[in-house]
Amino acid sequence: MTDDRLAVVGELSALRRIVPRLPGSPGTLLGPGDDAAVLAAPDGRVVLTTDVMVEGPDFRRDWSTPRDIGFKAAATNLADIAAMGARPTGLLVAITAPADLPVAVLEGIADGFAEACAALAPGCGVVGGDLTMSPTLTVAVTAVGSLDHAAPVLRSGARVGDVVAYAGSLGRAGAALRLLFGADGAAAVAALRRERPELLDEQLAPRPPLSAGPAAAAAGATAMLDVSDGLLLDASRIARASGVVLDLDGTALDHDVRAVAQALAVTHEVARSVVLTAGEDHGLLACFPDGAVLPAPFRIVGAVVAGEPDVLVDGLPTAEATAGWDSFAPRRD
Amino acid sequence: MTDDRLAVVGELSALRRIVPRLPGSPGTLLGPGDDAAVLAAPDGRVVLTTDVMVEGPDFRRDWSTPRDIGFKAAATNLADIAAMGARPTGLLVAITAPADLPVAVLEGIADGFAEACAALAPGCGVVGGDLTMSPTLTVAVTAVGSLDHAAPVLRSGARVGDVVAYAGSLGRAGAALRLLFGADGAAAVAALRRERPELLDEQLAPRPPLSAGPAAAAAGATAMLDVSDGLLLDASRIARASGVVLDLDGTALDHDVRAVAQALAVTHEVARSVVLTAGEDHGLLACFPDGAVLPAPFRIVGAVVAGEPDVLVDGLPTAEATAGWDSFAPRRD
Repeated sequence: MTDDRLAVVGELSALRRIVPRLPGSPGTLLGPGDDAAVLAAPDGRVVLTTDVMVEGPDFRRDWSTPRDIGFKAAATNLADIAAMGARPTGLLVAITAPADLPVAVLEGIADGFAEACAALAPGCGVVGGDLTMSPTLTVAVTAVGSLDHAAPVLRSGARVGDVVAYAGSLGRAGAALRLLFGADGAAAVAALRRERPELLDEQLAPRPPLSAGPAAAAAGATAMLDVSDGLLLDASRIARASGVVLDLDGTALDHDVRAVAQALAVTHEVARSVVLTAGEDHGLLACFPDGAVLPAPFRIVGAVVAGEPDVLVDGLPTAEATAGWDSFAPRRD
Repeated sequence: MTDDRLAVVGELSALRRIVPRLPGSPGTLLGPGDDAAVLAAPDGRVVLTTDVMVEGPDFRRDWSTPRDIGFKAAATNLADIAAMGARPTGLLVAITAPADLPVAVLEGIADGFAEACAALAPGCGVVGGDLTMSPTLTVAVTAVGSLDHAAPVLRSGARVGDVVAYAGSLGRAGAALRLLFGADGAAAVAALRRERPELLDEQLAPRPPLSAGPAAAAAGATAMLDVSDGLLLDASRIARASGVVLDLDGTALDHDVRAVAQALAVTHEVARSVVLTAGEDHGLLACFPDGAVLPAPFRIVGAVVAGEPDVLVDGLPTAEATAGWDSFAPRRD
C-alpha cells in the first residue's frame, strides 16, 4: 500500500494529479500553469466574490465526502455570482491542507468542483489555484462571473409594490444539519446518507437553481441575494438596503414547513422556525415589479410594502427576526 | 481595557472596522457589501491569480507586524499579475482567523493591503473579501489585472538569441530570512528590524518594481515570471516551458552576491548560493529580443541559448540547479 500523504507525495506530484481533474471552460483564454490565468470578460466587467470554507466550523470530514466539500465550496460561491444576476465564468481555488492529508482527498475535492460546475454553472471552469501546507484544511474560492451587458441586481433596488419571490428549497439544509448533529457516530451518519440522500445533499452538496439568477435579471428583478444565513436575516438585508418592508406570505412557505416537519418529526411551529432561520439553502430571494413574468422556478413568497425597514410574516413581526448569523458567535442549534 | 478578541467583538463589528481601511480603486464599479463586487475589465479580459499565506510556514507573528502580513500577501499576488505584463486592478482577500485574534491585528493587515496597493500598484483596490473563524490564521488573496489590449507574457516565449533580464533585488529576502532564523527571541528580532530595516523589509514587506511588468510587455518581452522560488528554479521554468537554455552571467549577479555576503558575513560562495536559490525576491525575470530597449529597472543578467532545457551560470551547470522548492518538503535552510 503506497503512502498517499501530501507530505510524501509532494506538492508538485499532487498538483499533477489534481489539476487534470479540474473543469476547463470556453472563456478560459489561459488556464493554470503560468503566473496567472486569463479569462474572458465579454462585456468589459467582471463580477467577483470570495468565500472560504474551514474544516470544523464549515464542514466535517465525518459528514462530507471530499466530493461534497468541493461541490459545496463551488456551489456557495457560484450562488453569490448568480445572486447578482450574473453567469459564472470561472473559479479560483486556494486549498490549505495538513501534510498528512491523503492526496486522494484533494482529488475528490477537485471532482466535486467539476461536478458542481457541470450541474450548476455549465461553461464555468477552474482557471487557477494554489495548494499550500497548513494545520487546518481550508478551501478558499474566488468566483468570477459575467453580467453579459445587464446591470447587476443589488440588494438595494426593491420598491414598494414589488413581489417577493424565491427560487430553491427552504429549510432543508438546516433540517439535514439537525439530523447530522443528532447522528451518533459514523455508522449513523452513513445510514442517514443512505436513507435520506436527497435531504442530506441539500446540506452537504446543495444544488440551488442558479441559472434562475441571470433569468431574474432579464425579467427585471429589482433586488436579489442568495439565502445563505436564513430567510429572515437575508430578507432583512434587502429590506434595510432598499428601505422597505418585506412582508412574507406564511402560506407560501407551508410546503417547505411541512417537508421540514416531516423530515425532523417536529411540530409545524418548530419546522417553521427552521424554514425562517436556518441558513445554507443558497436559493435566490428576489423582488420583481408586480406583474413581471417570473422565470422558473421562482415562486411568489411575499410582497414589498412601505414602512420602517423590517421583515414580517403575514403582516406581523416574528420572534425569529432578531436572530442573526455571526460565524464568530456561538452556533444556535 | 476593552476585550478586542474577534469572538467578543463579533464578525460584523470587526468588518465595520476593517472594511473602511481597505483601498478603493477607480475600476471598482461596485465595492464590498453585496453578494459580489463588479470590477471593470477594460479590454474584455481579466488576469487572475490566487495565493494563500499560512501562519507558520509562510509568516510568523513574532517576525511580521500585521501591516507586514497584509503588505506581503498583497505584494506576492500583485507580482504574479505584473509577471504576465498586466496592471493590477483589484484584490479579493479571504482571511481565516482564530477566535482569540485581536481585531486590531486585522486592522493592521488591512492597512498593509492599503500600503502595498499604494506603493506597488496605484489604482488597485480591495474589491471584496471574507472573514471566517479557523484555528489557523491564513490570508488568501485573489488578484485581478488588466492587460490593456496587450498579449499576456507567458513563460514559454523565450527564444534563442534573447537576452535575460531582471528587475528587482536578488537574495536579499533570503538573507533576511537567514538573519531572522538566527535571531534568538523577540528582542533580537526587534534589534534586527531596527538596525537593518531595509534588508528585513525585503523579506517581510517586499517592494518589487512591479510597474516594470507592463513596461516589459510593451518593450516586447518574450517570457516573464516573478522570482518567488529562487532564481535558478524560476529560470528553469522559463527554460523548460520555452525549450531553451538560460545562461546566466555570473558577473551580473556580483552586486547582489556582495550585498548578501556583507549582510550575512559569509563567503562569496555561500552568498552566491543564496542569490541563486533563495526565493521570495518577487522581482521580475524576463527575456527580451536582443537589442530591445529594456524598461527601468531591468538589467541584463544572461542570454538565451540553444540546447536541452537548462539553466547555466557562465556556461556551466551549478550544484544548486537541481534544488527545488516544494512547500510540503522539509525547508532547506
